[in-house]
Formats: sequence, structure tokens, C-alpha cells
Amino acid sequence: MNKAYYAVIFTSILSKEAKDYDQMAESMETLANQQPGFIGIESVREQIGITISYWKTLEDIKNWKSNVDHQLAQKLGIEKWYESYKVRICKVEREYEFEANL
Amino acid sequence: MNKAYYAVIFTSILSKEAKDYDQMAESMETLANQQPGFIGIESVREQIGITISYWKTLEDIKNWKSNVDHQLAQKLGIEKWYESYKVRICKVEREYEFEANL
Repeated sequence: MNKAYYAVIFTSILSKEAKDYDQMAESMETLANQQPGFIGIESVREQIGITISYWKTLEDIKNWKSNVDHQLAQKLGIEKWYESYKVRICKVEREYEFEANL
Repeated sequence: MNKAYYAVIFTSILSKEAKDYDQMAESMETLANQQPGFIGIESVREQIGITISYWKTLEDIKNWKSNVDHQLAQKLGIEKWYESYKVRICKVEREYEFEANL
């Protein structure tokens, strides 16, 4: 790995009625993609949801958090969609991977 | 947050035939729970799987990686279960959470 980067781990439980959530989640993912410093995103949901977005710097994460459209989504999330969530800002210190010879 | 802790982000794609995988994954989760420094684990799978385990120190993560039963699971994972995976060792630098007043 050439340089440290950052991960935002977002774990959440949705309210029983989470109308329009999927649409907003999708549009936030598209919007995140367009932000400076965005590296990638991985998202999976069963009983709980885990979304991890990767960013070049802490400043990029701060800017994304304060993005106007994202702010609105965060507000609606608290009002309508989430029963609970937790955000962890992490520094990726080391990584390794495996790929099968298909 | 009182003290920094660590997250191991494990993202994976399973092979088409991942017989006995669920059973091994479950037993590894139970075993991880018994290790020194273990804080918690969150795991979700759709097309991709994300498992995040949380640990007090990097030393705890190293010990868990070299646990004998876990080593066997890692070997079988490479031979049989995973099409690909990626491991990221992260330092959790900041966190915040929300809980709805139910």
C-alpha cells in the first residue's frame, strides 16, 4: 500500500417503515462517488446494514459529511429511517488480499 | 471514546460451491469471542460479505490471526470457499452514534 487512507464504517438498523430509503441510499452513493477524495464504497444489508466508504483524507470525510444534500439525507435518516446507527472513522493501517486463480 | 481500538474489515466473495462455509464461519465467530482483546463482531452477506471484528490492540489481532484453528479455517478458505477476499486492519480514531427514542 502506498499511502494510508481512511474508512468510514457505518452500521445501521432501519426503522420498521423505511419508505424511500433505498432510493435515497442509492442517490447518496452516487453523490459520494463524485466527491473529492472518494476511493470506493461497499454496502450490505440483512438485519443490520454495513456500509463502508473509503477516502483519501480525514478532510475529504469532513467535507462529505457537510455536503448540503448529504446533510438533508442525514436529517431524514434520523427523523424517518434509522432505529439506530453508529459511525466509526478509521485509519486503514495495513491491507492484504487473496484472489483465486479462476 | 476512552481509548483507540482496532477494526479488521474482511470483505469477501464466496466461490459458487461454498459447502460447510456457514458452519465454519459460525464456529470462527464463537472462537473469536473467546480471544483476549476481542470487543465485538458484525457480519452481513449478500453478493459480497462484510465481516468487521473489533479488537483492543494490534497484538490481539495478530494473535487471533495465528490461532491454530483459525489458521486451518484460513487455509480452507483459500482452498475451498473464497473467490476473493480483502483484509484491512484499521485504527478506529473517532466514533459517534444515534439511537431513536422508541
